[in-house]
Amino acid sequence: MKFLRVNMDDLSINTEAVSKEYYGLGGRGLTSIMINQDVPASCDALGAENKLIFAPGYLSGTTLVNSSRLSIGAKSPLTGGIKESNVGGTVAADIASLGITAVIIEGKIKDDKFYILRIDQNGQAELLDAAAYTGLNTYDLVKKLKADFGDKNSVTCIGTAGEMKLKTASIQTSDFDGRPCRAAGRGGLGAVMGSKGIKALVVSRGGKSADEPVDNNTFNKAAKAYAKAVKADEFSGEILPELGTAVLVDPINAAGGLPSYNATKGQFENADKINGDALASRIKKRGGKTTHKGCAQCIINCSNEYVDEKGRYVTSSLEYETIWAMGPMLGNDDLDVIATLDFLCDNIGIDTMSTGASLAIAMDAGYKEFGDGAAAIEMVRGIGAGTEFGKILGNGPAAVGRHFNHKRVPVVKGQSIAAYDPRAIQGMAVTYATSPMGGDHTAGWVVDQNLADFGGTLDPLSDKGQVDASRDAQLHMAAVDTVGICDFAQSGLAAEGGMENVFSMVSSKSGKAFGEKEWAALGSRILKAELDFNKKAGFTNKDDRLPEMFYKEPLPPHNTVVVVSDEQMDSTFDFEE
Amino acid sequence: MKFLRVNMDDLSINTEAVSKEYYGLGGRGLTSIMINQDVPASCDALGAENKLIFAPGYLSGTTLVNSSRLSIGAKSPLTGGIKESNVGGTVAADIASLGITAVIIEGKIKDDKFYILRIDQNGQAELLDAAAYTGLNTYDLVKKLKADFGDKNSVTCIGTAGEMKLKTASIQTSDFDGRPCRAAGRGGLGAVMGSKGIKALVVSRGGKSADEPVDNNTFNKAAKAYAKAVKADEFSGEILPELGTAVLVDPINAAGGLPSYNATKGQFENADKINGDALASRIKKRGGKTTHKGCAQCIINCSNEYVDEKGRYVTSSLEYETIWAMGPMLGNDDLDVIATLDFLCDNIGIDTMSTGASLAIAMDAGYKEFGDGAAAIEMVRGIGAGTEFGKILGNGPAAVGRHFNHKRVPVVKGQSIAAYDPRAIQGMAVTYATSPMGGDHTAGWVVDQNLADFGGTLDPLSDKGQVDASRDAQLHMAAVDTVGICDFAQSGLAAEGGMENVFSMVSSKSGKAFGEKEWAALGSRILKAELDFNKKAGFTNKDDRLPEMFYKEPLPPHNTVVVVSDEQMDSTFDFEE
Repeated sequence: MKFLRVNMDDLSINTEAVSKEYYGLGGRGLTSIMINQDVPASCDALGAENKLIFAPGYLSGTTLVNSSRLSIGAKSPLTGGIKESNVGGTVAADIASLGITAVIIEGKIKDDKFYILRIDQNGQAELLDAAAYTGLNTYDLVKKLKADFGDKNSVTCIGTAGEMKLKTASIQTSDFDGRPCRAAGRGGLGAVMGSKGIKALVVSRGGKSADEPVDNNTFNKAAKAYAKAVKADEFSGEILPELGTAVLVDPINAAGGLPSYNATKGQFENADKINGDALASRIKKRGGKTTHKGCAQCIINCSNEYVDEKGRYVTSSLEYETIWAMGPMLGNDDLDVIATLDFLCDNIGIDTMSTGASLAIAMDAGYKEFGDGAAAIEMVRGIGAGTEFGKILGNGPAAVGRHFNHKRVPVVKGQSIAAYDPRAIQGMAVTYATSPMGGDHTAGWVVDQNLADFGGTLDPLSDKGQVDASRDAQLHMAAVDTVGICDFAQSGLAAEGGMENVFSMVSSKSGKAFGEKEWAALGSRILKAELDFNKKAGFTNKDDRLPEMFYKEPLPPHNTVVVVSDEQMDSTFDFEE
Repeated sequence: MKFLRVNMDDLSINTEAVSKEYYGLGGRGLTSIMINQDVPASCDALGAENKLIFAPGYLSGTTLVNSSRLSIGAKSPLTGGIKESNVGGTVAADIASLGITAVIIEGKIKDDKFYILRIDQNGQAELLDAAAYTGLNTYDLVKKLKADFGDKNSVTCIGTAGEMKLKTASIQTSDFDGRPCRAAGRGGLGAVMGSKGIKALVVSRGGKSADEPVDNNTFNKAAKAYAKAVKADEFSGEILPELGTAVLVDPINAAGGLPSYNATKGQFENADKINGDALASRIKKRGGKTTHKGCAQCIINCSNEYVDEKGRYVTSSLEYETIWAMGPMLGNDDLDVIATLDFLCDNIGIDTMSTGASLAIAMDAGYKEFGDGAAAIEMVRGIGAGTEFGKILGNGPAAVGRHFNHKRVPVVKGQSIAAYDPRAIQGMAVTYATSPMGGDHTAGWVVDQNLADFGGTLDPLSDKGQVDASRDAQLHMAAVDTVGICDFAQSGLAAEGGMENVFSMVSSKSGKAFGEKEWAALGSRILKAELDFNKKAGFTNKDDRLPEMFYKEPLPPHNTVVVVSDEQMDSTFDFEE
């Protein structure tokens, strides 16, 4: 248990013991509580006072499956509020295996130089001049870093978008095959990393000094039971390995909640060209991989490897949210175009969802035609090339809306919504509006409770029960993001005895009692810290609103608007006292 | 006394009697009180709910000299607050001479078409299809309008910047020679005009139905006395006719208050190349005009006509604020470049001050070198051409700052400051910070009270007395902008018995008693309305602050920062109860 503290003011690196208040925390719990405590809420997100924190989940680096989740926290340059963006790959397991609880980057470089933060197999860290790596996109960067440092390293890096400090820049991590295709995409944390002058973290995969659970036997027993439940579940054990998250295209489209043509329609007429079946059959036909291991210790393998007609690698992994953002949102039904855009975003180091929304707004404003895939590719290449218009796109949907004086901008707190239209799935209206993260789906994904296809019992077009559902989901997810269990492995939590398995792992790791009460308290503590930060940063309940389009423009085919009232939105965090 | 109300929703035009609450008002008093009353403060400035009001001063169209001042009011797309921008030329006298108290444009065109609002010599108005004029810059536009409607018209128009709804777009009016070189530059009102679909007002210069003063004799006597005082004053009677407002370059530079190189220096090393003497001698040598009548009924003739080496017209009138914005602010000492930039801005229809600040920020951020005049011209041409980068520049300094992640952005409420650095002239810090108009110099020009050269008795580097000076000036100016007396003819007010002359003109026009008490009440009533609007629009005292650069970056040569405290700023409008 140690913090690695890197100060870019003087390029110093210090190792320090984890202070007591952070015991039992990892992931989002650690980053959010520390950001709230140590970062002045009114600071410049790209200035010296902001901190960029990399924290593996509390269960990362243990024997538990699907636990290599890295939370990255900072004040967001995109939303102006607190941000935790989490990402898979291998790095979380690796950092945890070195006995490092969190890597904290603070201060600001004096010049515009970039550095590599190298952490070797003994957990020793050093800052190395990154002149030879500066200006590289992520795929070339990883190739060069592996050539110079060896294959047995995880890379966590920024592309040129992060170097340019674009407000939707992502932080990319290398996947199980060593490709920088896993993204901490939301909130522009790549820009924060760029402002700190860190081009990449190169972390040895050879760590052996992980924090051992206090009671190893009990831990391993619970971890095994958890893995068994994930395997036994139909969704995580069969559907996701076969079709990946693209399986969501059909039910969300059927529900009229797939935002298309910059969220002016809720159904995409060519959804069958981009759905799970279409994706899987194309990949298979071309000799790519539909079942693919993207993250360390993953037993679901929901990832895929998309290849071109000649079987050459295009991108990995093509996921539902990106398919939406680069597909229906742009009126584009060409999977090859979607895959190319996904690769370009990973390579430039920019969020696919925000970028899709940026392009959609530009198209909606008349800059290019909807459905023009070549134009979309050209626009994204412009982001990477750093053209002035590319910078506008890279600064996100709100910047594009301002640029074109275009009012249909589907963002909350400056961040784009995801692939669920809140007019057709009202529960997501609450999550988008109230999450301290801004427009975000993972913060409280209540689609399952809204749609009968998923066993949901709420009416997706009604406000009834939506606030409670979103609140519970948000509290729950804050805890899930803290222990570091992959969202898609939540089947293990939902299984009979699943929560008890997690409680057992946490308590046997920490040596302290942990149960339902502590789980609830953990979620509440984290959300309170995040809300507190945002309040200090100047947010009011007026920021917990959707843009006007969702209240005023009925969405076909249901022709409904968001009906959750302002009062209901404001009651979401009534647990706050 | 009538209002001309033009509704762009249905293209209807109605004439209505002026309601009692607006009796005795004109100019800023009328626009601000009406905007505050009739425009929802939270509305989209470019939407149907905003209103664009053209109101001649209360004394416009009378026998008083230097009174052709037109106030244009609306919610500003640049600041998000209330805006009155006033302008000279001939139009205010012409509108008033038609017996029109104000022209009110409301609603929003359904398509993207543009119209000409034509007002003939009988005060009859009609909307004409402007397809043949759309896309024209102001000089070509005026030429074509005069060809089509005759020379005897005043034109009030937008260029392409206004059509594109750029947030620093100006509204240009034709001068005494019929050139569109007079600008209501501040606050992006050209974008509001563009959003209303009005390309130009074409107002007959043949109006004869002006509101007659109730007591003509008394009025004319006071007006004559006023004119005499303006002529007798050394500044307005001799210096301004000879050197124009460029005469300010030397004393402001000497005071260390000429913001140079994006306000990183308070003195410009080559000020002698761009000062009043340099300008006048160059114009004379080339056969241009140093003494030039720009506005109807002007007896000062501070305008000039700048010509090139071959004696060909370049621009009119080259004024101090533009010389600053396109000169020292950009590190540029070439008067030809400054004149070309001034012409381009007038022609495109964009504010020279904001544009200078936009260019300066881009240069400061490393986009181009300071002093590169060709680059500056290319950038401004890009605004007119509607390139994507041009749009960023045209959306103003704050947009440029966001685009480049550049923090040194000298704006208040989104609007650039003017040619007086608040670190060297602390009184201007108060006016910039607290004026409801955003960063603005005319709202409360207390340079004279700060600099001994102008007879000032305040210490320009001290906070002492600055709040009182700015408050008094702001209240006074609100009344001056209401009666419609040219700022440079204020010598008439300052002369012995000058205020009484104005009181006499107002009371003999209205037939109601008007004196010092009413003058003070007028200023207070207007500022209260403006502050009320801004409060409803969401402004708080946090918006009454200068950007951090002025508090944190000492300005050479005095190496001082702004010392007026937040508490002092907040006490500026303590008259408000």
